[in-house]
Amino acid sequence: MTQTSNYVLKNAKLATMIPESGPYGLITAGAVVVLDGTIQWVGPESDLPASYAKWEARDLDGRLVTPALIDCHTHVVFGGDRAMEFEMRLNGASYEEVARAGGGIVSTVSATRAASLDELVATALPRLDALIAEGTTVVEVKSGYGLDRETELNMLRAARRLGELRPVQIKTTFLGAHATPAEYKGRDDAYIEEVCNPTLHAAHAEGLVDAVDGFCEGIAFMPDQIERVFKVAQELGIPVKLHAEQLSHQGGTLLAAKYGALSVDHVEYATEDDAKAMAQSGSVAVILPGAFYTIREVQAPPIEHFRKHGVPMALATDCNPGSSPMTSLLLTMNMGCTLFRMTPEEALVGVTRNAAQALGLTDVGQIAPGMRADLAVWNVKSPGELAYRIGFNPLHSRIYQGEL
Amino acid sequence: MTQTSNYVLKNAKLATMIPESGPYGLITAGAVVVLDGTIQWVGPESDLPASYAKWEARDLDGRLVTPALIDCHTHVVFGGDRAMEFEMRLNGASYEEVARAGGGIVSTVSATRAASLDELVATALPRLDALIAEGTTVVEVKSGYGLDRETELNMLRAARRLGELRPVQIKTTFLGAHATPAEYKGRDDAYIEEVCNPTLHAAHAEGLVDAVDGFCEGIAFMPDQIERVFKVAQELGIPVKLHAEQLSHQGGTLLAAKYGALSVDHVEYATEDDAKAMAQSGSVAVILPGAFYTIREVQAPPIEHFRKHGVPMALATDCNPGSSPMTSLLLTMNMGCTLFRMTPEEALVGVTRNAAQALGLTDVGQIAPGMRADLAVWNVKSPGELAYRIGFNPLHSRIYQGEL
Ligand SMILES: [Zn+2]
Ligand SMILES: [Zn+2]
Repeated sequence: MTQTSNYVLKNAKLATMIPESGPYGLITAGAVVVLDGTIQWVGPESDLPASYAKWEARDLDGRLVTPALIDCHTHVVFGGDRAMEFEMRLNGASYEEVARAGGGIVSTVSATRAASLDELVATALPRLDALIAEGTTVVEVKSGYGLDRETELNMLRAARRLGELRPVQIKTTFLGAHATPAEYKGRDDAYIEEVCNPTLHAAHAEGLVDAVDGFCEGIAFMPDQIERVFKVAQELGIPVKLHAEQLSHQGGTLLAAKYGALSVDHVEYATEDDAKAMAQSGSVAVILPGAFYTIREVQAPPIEHFRKHGVPMALATDCNPGSSPMTSLLLTMNMGCTLFRMTPEEALVGVTRNAAQALGLTDVGQIAPGMRADLAVWNVKSPGELAYRIGFNPLHSRIYQGEL
Repeated sequence: MTQTSNYVLKNAKLATMIPESGPYGLITAGAVVVLDGTIQWVGPESDLPASYAKWEARDLDGRLVTPALIDCHTHVVFGGDRAMEFEMRLNGASYEEVARAGGGIVSTVSATRAASLDELVATALPRLDALIAEGTTVVEVKSGYGLDRETELNMLRAARRLGELRPVQIKTTFLGAHATPAEYKGRDDAYIEEVCNPTLHAAHAEGLVDAVDGFCEGIAFMPDQIERVFKVAQELGIPVKLHAEQLSHQGGTLLAAKYGALSVDHVEYATEDDAKAMAQSGSVAVILPGAFYTIREVQAPPIEHFRKHGVPMALATDCNPGSSPMTSLLLTMNMGCTLFRMTPEEALVGVTRNAAQALGLTDVGQIAPGMRADLAVWNVKSPGELAYRIGFNPLHSRIYQGEL
């Protein structure tokens, strides 16, 4: 019965994150039984069934164990970087001067189109490795810097490749409706019909699309344009999510809720009605403080409305070269608390259980029987410490599918 | 002539940080000659004197080399943590409720007094290691959580011990005038005369004091009280620095300038006259964005005044359990840019050359002949990237006194 990949974690403080089981679902002197990469049993060590007595035991010295972290919103695959633009802006360059120097999303689209599949993978790996080093085992990766058929497909292929090169689960999201490329300037509708939707079909045929996303904003697409993409997703049976109400209120949240979106992301300008609609559709509010911080937004997302109406909140890095060049979920948790007054427990739920829900995953994000054995072991005394520290990584070890 | 500890770094992009030598003092295809832990020669590789041709060469593959980083303001030695208080506040506890539960600086003082020297060292090491992992080779460490003779001395002994246990230079700062302990409540002057100043004498006699600091603020000490500590420092020939104008304007900056302070720290509420006085006294403005961010201050330090009057600006973590539980100088650089609109070059000067000046050090902080060979090698293309990234550590290797 005892095999090397089957074992019992003992002497652990477990933040199980199981709903309605007290703060953090905490079990102070806990044990976890892992069998073939799956959690078999969880509970106080004193209740451990005698049948596991002879299994290999791993003593965790009282360390905290949480579900492994999940980054449910990233753009880690892209070409180039935007450090020059960051520097120009801080040296007083105007938006026009930056644009003339080739800055902005246009520069990332050019660099991404110019990159080979291997280059996209190679440049994304250090960013992915930074997330993994903090105990992350599931990372969502979006397309959206190609904006042409071949490059969008390449970005998603690169994302899939990342999951082969590292012990991590990658969830891919098609974000063709991220921006209108220069060659379609002023012809947004034509871009949606001629490029975005045909590319979505092609990507789906290649098995590259786990979800479909869009950017609904004054500077991007209007709800009626996004809806045309969502209709294709619906036909193909792919779940949707949406960047909405980040810089202004455009009505994207109601559209997303109408399509039963897994999540609505950013949502700084969401209203109480939006929160009600999300609660009804079961959509997760994905809060992205890294972008809020970087572009110095002033309107915080309506955390109180989400709490009041029971909208699950997740937190993610939004890792991208322009508005959030961030690769730390721990720092994201701290920012959620510091900038938006989320509680440390909401922050941890937000990068575990609720992040799983934002990706449509039901087998990760909690330490519970039947869940995949994706766990993070931490050198901290209490789960609240994870959000309290700034720029510090107390990870002791990471377990993915039962393997260290 | 060639010994193993003597070598030439080749094929490097050098951000020398030498003043008045262009942005970052950049040398694109540079070489550095290291002899007995000291920089012997620096320049374009094409100018490398023939005498070094046979020395051991280390090819850096075009990587960026900067002076090693310097954290010139920390409180990394302390007992306990304040995660519980962080969590209580975010769960809506009032200041009184937190205080009743034993929160606030009082809790850190209790925990620090209760800790042994070994415990103070052991708990500080992971924080120091986090700084070292980002290429830091000099760290300032303050006392100030003992507020009694034995514990203040213990904190400084712990700081010195850190420098023996790790390849890093520790600069100690006596901060007896940090707060008035409970047993002297309402008797600030008596605390200064009966505890603070006698302890300063004792610490100096033990060789534990590289600088003397104070906290000049409405909630701490007034300038006339700080001055009594500065007078003792002056008698003993120890340089001073001051926490001043963080939450309000109390006049600490002018006092510090009068005593030729190495630095004035925080300075959110400093005026243009304060900036002029600092320029005259040659005091560095030490900017601490981690505390600004954590306690959600709104008044930014007067960067424009410091620029206009030529006050050198440094950046530091202010690592402490209450207002800045931060252990990343790279994140500090990003915060300096994002929150205060410092340029990436100012940020890098702030954790190298100007941080050295804030500690009274003249042999580190630049890549120049005669300087100690404290260097950081980075996996980045341009020095601006160091401040641009958030929660990412691109360090390739760290050289301390010529040793990897
Ligand atoms: Zn995004
Ligand atoms: Zn301080």
